[in-house]
Amino acid sequence: MSLGDFSVSDHGITFAKGYRASGLSCGIKRSLRPDLALVVSSLPASAAGLFTTNRVRAAPVDLCEERLREHPSEARGFVVVSGVANALTGPDGLEDSREVIALTERGLGVPEGSVYHAATGVIGPRIPVEKIASHLNGAVASLGADRAASTRAATAILTTDTRTKEAAVSVRLADGTRVRISGMAKGSGMIAPSVGPPHATTLAFLTLDARVTPVGLQRLLAREADRTFNMISVDGDTSTNDTVLAFANGASGGALADDDPALARGVGYVLEHLARSVARDGEGATKLLTVNVHGADDLEEARQAAKAVARSLLVKTALFGADPNVGRIACALGYSGANFDTGDLEVQLVDGHRSWPLIVRGTPAPGLDNGQGHRLHGVLQRLDEVVLDVRLGQGPARATAWGCDLSYGYVQINAQYRT
Amino acid sequence: MSLGDFSVSDHGITFAKGYRASGLSCGIKRSLRPDLALVVSSLPASAAGLFTTNRVRAAPVDLCEERLREHPSEARGFVVVSGVANALTGPDGLEDSREVIALTERGLGVPEGSVYHAATGVIGPRIPVEKIASHLNGAVASLGADRAASTRAATAILTTDTRTKEAAVSVRLADGTRVRISGMAKGSGMIAPSVGPPHATTLAFLTLDARVTPVGLQRLLAREADRTFNMISVDGDTSTNDTVLAFANGASGGALADDDPALARGVGYVLEHLARSVARDGEGATKLLTVNVHGADDLEEARQAAKAVARSLLVKTALFGADPNVGRIACALGYSGANFDTGDLEVQLVDGHRSWPLIVRGTPAPGLDNGQGHRLHGVLQRLDEVVLDVRLGQGPARATAWGCDLSYGYVQINAQYRT
Repeated sequence: MSLGDFSVSDHGITFAKGYRASGLSCGIKRSLRPDLALVVSSLPASAAGLFTTNRVRAAPVDLCEERLREHPSEARGFVVVSGVANALTGPDGLEDSREVIALTERGLGVPEGSVYHAATGVIGPRIPVEKIASHLNGAVASLGADRAASTRAATAILTTDTRTKEAAVSVRLADGTRVRISGMAKGSGMIAPSVGPPHATTLAFLTLDARVTPVGLQRLLAREADRTFNMISVDGDTSTNDTVLAFANGASGGALADDDPALARGVGYVLEHLARSVARDGEGATKLLTVNVHGADDLEEARQAAKAVARSLLVKTALFGADPNVGRIACALGYSGANFDTGDLEVQLVDGHRSWPLIVRGTPAPGLDNGQGHRLHGVLQRLDEVVLDVRLGQGPARATAWGCDLSYGYVQINAQYRT
Repeated sequence: MSLGDFSVSDHGITFAKGYRASGLSCGIKRSLRPDLALVVSSLPASAAGLFTTNRVRAAPVDLCEERLREHPSEARGFVVVSGVANALTGPDGLEDSREVIALTERGLGVPEGSVYHAATGVIGPRIPVEKIASHLNGAVASLGADRAASTRAATAILTTDTRTKEAAVSVRLADGTRVRISGMAKGSGMIAPSVGPPHATTLAFLTLDARVTPVGLQRLLAREADRTFNMISVDGDTSTNDTVLAFANGASGGALADDDPALARGVGYVLEHLARSVARDGEGATKLLTVNVHGADDLEEARQAAKAVARSLLVKTALFGADPNVGRIACALGYSGANFDTGDLEVQLVDGHRSWPLIVRGTPAPGLDNGQGHRLHGVLQRLDEVVLDVRLGQGPARATAWGCDLSYGYVQINAQYRT
């Protein structure tokens, strides 16, 4: 897809110039699915990151923050482990992660302090450093810049995900330079929007070949993640390991692009694409839910209202049952904290170019209890993305949140005793 | 059970002197299960109430507040309708509820402004006033003060509940007067603790034969509900219809009891018993979850921490699967907003007089990954009430929250398209 100077690629994390990736199994997952991913930049890169607000933080999160403080413009790569979170592991866990990073830095022959680290999986167990150590040479040897290498890395960071999540675009900057932005993410459960300052949810990694300072990259990442990753919810549980990490290695050349709106647009596109992919692949999900709120008094209330609907268990189960249960939508808006008069409330179901009224001036649309309700039941059954347009009143603010339905599959995935 | 001057009865809402109750089917529920409940006081009573903080409020909630403002010491009864919520019904809904109240006042021959009203059920449809009108005489004629009449009323307020929820105690006050406090509640879904000032969750009704002023009753109710009904969660959705209503008709005689600690203890017992019953009967629930948090810096943080664990979907599904997944407990505590150091965290599973360590100084108890984990899996399978004791640190504050597990049944109940 090309939109003027904005081209979307089906490539993954190595679309940006100067990056290579690999992914393989080192035996952490008993299923022997891939569980070790490595991404490397051929040039020192500016780095930026957003991390969980959970007070119980995984060791890799602490080490990423340490690196960002000390070496924000010398990033050379990151190593991701899936299967164990390395959270709730105390000082031993911190030592384990330091060892994984040191092994990676030595394996790549890059300076100390230049490799970042993330993990995802079961909370509690320690990370098996020996398994990682014995497979790091293989991960380094199999690094590649092609599409298949991207996919191997994107596969190796998954846990309960059912599919890889990748995105890539190229954009032309104000000075004519064409830069590439690529990304991959994982996330299926333990996913919630935050109520605090901008921060990451789930794992997402961005590679840019633009020239950006660490400070500019951090600002850009925070702003765009707040509008995308902070607006998705699967189960309302904010993880101990949430990490959004971005590298910009300048391989495209050109002028410093910190404030280039085209770059912001590209980063925003990649983050939104990845965030939607995470919501769509929520544990057990059969439908993506997009909630657009308009007419709120301010941005914060628009965000609260959209999130409340997207995370309501009663809305999510109704969606799974294809039930046009407008009362549950109104109820969630009512407790969201957003200010509105019930009599002003308008809600529509949007299906491509058609839209169906659900709530009109604060009461259910006519016929929802009988014929029209059955028609909408059929529409909801058919859609795999359900879009709700909510108008709270005449205020200037709008926001979008993403979620998914709640199915038997969610209970099954999370209730199984880990034998 | 008798504890000195504190006696628990197995009676329901008519245990307190001077109250009669009835319950019958007026045809709102297609199942023809009872859906109209009436409770009457033979003397004018002081009234107090707590109502939902949801901005989308059902009509009966507005009318209760109006009555409390205008006639707080002349309450004579309340009429409860189950099957329709009369929410999202605009001005028509308000007129419908006014009509139901007026019909009840005329049927009972009591003054205008003395009857209160609550409703629960589907949001959106209007309340069928004619069906109620044609059965009100029957409801008045069948009023009784015996155990069976209590149960009929307690049955007629249910929706997806699987059992009635009743409680009653008698206590001796400081002046020697023995007073009775009785209650009934309903609630199974759309249940969440509030984040605002004290308010009600679900429907609960208390009758007292003590002499209490409306102001004293309101203060007592707010304080005890904040510790009980505001600490339960089933699905995190705060309803449009939440109501806790209390009457005190003075039929016991004796001195004014506004500040009598024995009365507060009795009201607290009845509210806690009802709140736990609601959590235990959460939609699809197989286990009651009680979370005790100790050692928090202040009460608000203790409450947040306890609630976060009780409402975490990942903890709830692990509980359903009898999985001693301590990482999910730590994760929920971590995002609760409570301040603590991970290294200080202690969590125990309490089983009667035994307790099992789950988290010790911030890391999983030894053996949880193998033998001990299997033993705890067996313990969790056996228990129908799971008690978690959490110590955050050395702070002075403690709080308790109640919840339940999340099962396939919850999804089934809430995903069914209402045909």
